[in-house]
Amino acid sequence: MPKHLQKDLEELHRSLLRLAGYVEDAVVNATAALRTRDRDGGRRVIAGDNEIDQLENEVQDECLKILALHQPVAVDLRRISVVLMITTDLERMGDLAVGIAERAIALARPPYVPIPERIEGMTDRTLRMVRLSLDAFVNGDPIEAARVIRADDDVDRDNDEIIRELVAEMKQSPHLVEPALSLFSAVRHLERIADHATNIAEDVIYLVNGEIVRHHPEALGGG
Amino acid sequence: MPKHLQKDLEELHRSLLRLAGYVEDAVVNATAALRTRDRDGGRRVIAGDNEIDQLENEVQDECLKILALHQPVAVDLRRISVVLMITTDLERMGDLAVGIAERAIALARPPYVPIPERIEGMTDRTLRMVRLSLDAFVNGDPIEAARVIRADDDVDRDNDEIIRELVAEMKQSPHLVEPALSLFSAVRHLERIADHATNIAEDVIYLVNGEIVRHHPEALGGG
Repeated sequence: MPKHLQKDLEELHRSLLRLAGYVEDAVVNATAALRTRDRDGGRRVIAGDNEIDQLENEVQDECLKILALHQPVAVDLRRISVVLMITTDLERMGDLAVGIAERAIALARPPYVPIPERIEGMTDRTLRMVRLSLDAFVNGDPIEAARVIRADDDVDRDNDEIIRELVAEMKQSPHLVEPALSLFSAVRHLERIADHATNIAEDVIYLVNGEIVRHHPEALGGG
Repeated sequence: MPKHLQKDLEELHRSLLRLAGYVEDAVVNATAALRTRDRDGGRRVIAGDNEIDQLENEVQDECLKILALHQPVAVDLRRISVVLMITTDLERMGDLAVGIAERAIALARPPYVPIPERIEGMTDRTLRMVRLSLDAFVNGDPIEAARVIRADDDVDRDNDEIIRELVAEMKQSPHLVEPALSLFSAVRHLERIADHATNIAEDVIYLVNGEIVRHHPEALGGG
C-alpha cells in the first residue's frame, strides 16, 4: 500500500473512533438520564448531537477525499466503503440517543411510570455490542463480529420482556398510558441501537471475508 | 465523461430505480394490509423482502465495481456515493415496510382496535415523498428535493394526530392496549419511511450543490 494512503487511512480510523466515542457517550448519558429522570442530562445529549453530525460529515468528506486522491482498489476500497457505512450507523445511533433523551425529559414530569429495572442490563448489553463491533472493525476480527451478531438476541429478549411489563402497566393504570408510551419508544430506540451495532459487525465480516452478510445470517455458520 | 462510465452509470440508475419500485410496492402493500386487516397481504410483504435485500446488495456491488473500474472523480464520484447512501435508505424503508406488515398481521386478530382514518392520508403523503425524492435524484433537481424536505412536516403532523387518537383509545379501553401498541409502532414506522425520503432529498441537494445538508436544514433557505 502506498505510504500516503496508509497514513490517510490511519487518520480516517482515528476520526471514526472519535465519532464512535461521542456516540457511545451519548447513549450512556441518554439512558442514564432516562433511569434517573434527569431533565438536564437529557438536554445535554440533545445539545451534543450537533457535534456528532459535524463529525459524521467530516468522516464522510475524508472518505471521499481519499477516494479521489488515491483511487484505492480491492481491500482498501472496501475498507473505505465500510467506513462510510459504519459512519452512517454511528450517526443513526446518535439520533436514537437523542430520541431516548427526549423521552427522558418527558419522563421526568409526573405522572411517573415505574422504570423497569431490566433497562439497566439492556443498556449494558447494548453498549457492549457497540464497543465490541468497533473493536472487531479495528482488529479486523470476524469472530468478534459474529459474537456481536449473536448478542443481539439477548437485547431482543430484554426488549420483549420490558414491553410485556409496560403493557401490563398500561392496562392496570390508564393514567400512565402517556409516560408508558414514552418509555416504550425509548426502549425501542435502545433496541435499534443494538441493531446498528449488528450492522457494523456484519460490515466487518464483509470487509474481512469480502462477502456481504447483511441479511444473510446463515453465512456466519453455527446458527 | 468516458463512454463506458456513462453506460455503467445509466445501468446503475436503472438498478436503483428497480430497487425503489420494489420498496414502494412494499410500502403500499404493507399499509393496505394494515388498513384492511389482511393477514395474507402482510405475509406477502414479508416474503418479498428477500428480493429487496438481494437488489440492495447488487446495487452496492455495482457501485464498488464502477469505483474500481473507472476510478471516477468529482461529480461522478459524488454521484456514486449518493447512490450508495440512497440504497441504504431504500433498504431501510423496505425493513420498515416489513415492520408495518408484521403489525398488520397482529392487527388482523381480535380484539380489534379502530384504525384511524388519517392513516390513509399519511400513507399517501409518505409515498408522494418517496416518489418525489427519487424524481429529484433522477432529474438532479434541488427544488424538488427541498419540496420533499418541507413535506415531512405534514407527515409529522399526521403522526402526532394519530398518536393522540391512539392514546385516547388506550386510556378508554385498556383491553385494546396491545393492538393499539402495534398500531402505534406501525405509524411510527411510516413516519420513519418519510424521514428516509427526506434523507434521499438531502442527498440530492448534496449531489447537485456539493454541500452536505443532512443535519443542516437552514442551508435550504426559506425556512
